[in-house]
Amino acid sequence: MEWVVKLGGSLFPEDAINLCKELVGQNVIVICGGGEFANKIREYDQDTNFSDTTAHKTAILCMDIIGMLVADKIDDVVSVYSLEYAKKVLDEGKLPILLPSKLLEYLDPLEHSWKVTSDSISVYISWLLKTKILIVTNVDGIYTFEPSLDGAKLIKSISAKKLLTFSETSVDENLPELLLKYKLDCYVVNGKYPERAISIIEGKSSKYTFIGGN
Amino acid sequence: MEWVVKLGGSLFPEDAINLCKELVGQNVIVICGGGEFANKIREYDQDTNFSDTTAHKTAILCMDIIGMLVADKIDDVVSVYSLEYAKKVLDEGKLPILLPSKLLEYLDPLEHSWKVTSDSISVYISWLLKTKILIVTNVDGIYTFEPSLDGAKLIKSISAKKLLTFSETSVDENLPELLLKYKLDCYVVNGKYPERAISIIEGKSSKYTFIGGN
Repeated sequence: MEWVVKLGGSLFPEDAINLCKELVGQNVIVICGGGEFANKIREYDQDTNFSDTTAHKTAILCMDIIGMLVADKIDDVVSVYSLEYAKKVLDEGKLPILLPSKLLEYLDPLEHSWKVTSDSISVYISWLLKTKILIVTNVDGIYTFEPSLDGAKLIKSISAKKLLTFSETSVDENLPELLLKYKLDCYVVNGKYPERAISIIEGKSSKYTFIGGN
Repeated sequence: MEWVVKLGGSLFPEDAINLCKELVGQNVIVICGGGEFANKIREYDQDTNFSDTTAHKTAILCMDIIGMLVADKIDDVVSVYSLEYAKKVLDEGKLPILLPSKLLEYLDPLEHSWKVTSDSISVYISWLLKTKILIVTNVDGIYTFEPSLDGAKLIKSISAKKLLTFSETSVDENLPELLLKYKLDCYVVNGKYPERAISIIEGKSSKYTFIGGN
């Protein structure tokens, strides 16, 4: 396995399904964000104030839900609970989507808080598997400031250490810290253009932000 | 165990949490509906058209999510995956909330369709456990027609056979058929008034609809 591809929940359903179709045949494992399901837990949490652990665990179940729904729509995509089965699926020329709930129930390596989202979980899995990590989101990468604001510029390359000083980006707050801890690099790319993600995986030039954690 | 109490997802969070507080100490097991999480799957399904099995399984994960969130808010409520552990929790004077995903993955007794919701799942669990079944929803029971329409009257008692002829009610479409199959009776009550549910459980008079499946 060469890459963990983390698919942002905001790309679900159309863009997520389209990108996964393109990823079949690549040496990658996909992990999906919890999308609107996890957002709903966050909303309820603001009013009802659940424990960090329950919010964390239920948000991870939302990643399972989106993974199952994406896998359902494509013949050669299989949802899996284990890394061992993921490898078997790849060997058959199919694309595995990891449903992370069971794995994380046993390993539980990350802080239970809203700062730790599916981005951090994917970095952790990528560290476990010794793969590269590609975060696919709904913007072109990391910007100098909010991409919706005038004059915001896409950053081609940034160190995780520098990213720690940014207040809000398209990746989760905990991510730069985790990249430094595990000494990992990471690419952030826009999932609305599947060809960009494929180019990165195939080692060609593309539009993205590279975050250096080494 | 004397009762399965099915808590409608529409009661989540406040009314569901309040009722569960009152149910601690009763000889019951709670099962939660999937609420807004399951509704979201249904919405996506209308556009994206997932397979019946994936829609069914992901909707059941939504029941787990709501069960975990409700249990999180009350000290003496414990979420459980197995009926055996549920009995242990009851023996300790606490209230078990069943997270049905794992049990249903192994048993898989019901049709995979949107006609089969958490109501039917709860009836099946009640049949497994040989308990009575109480469906707690956000209206007073079953009405002669849509409760929002003028002149709709609450039905005190109806046979499941008669209910088969109704087009839309506050319980799922598959429920009357299942009550007939398993020869079970069922009470439908409004969860916004916890005292009504408690009265039924304690064998006292209350406002509800009784559905006879025997």
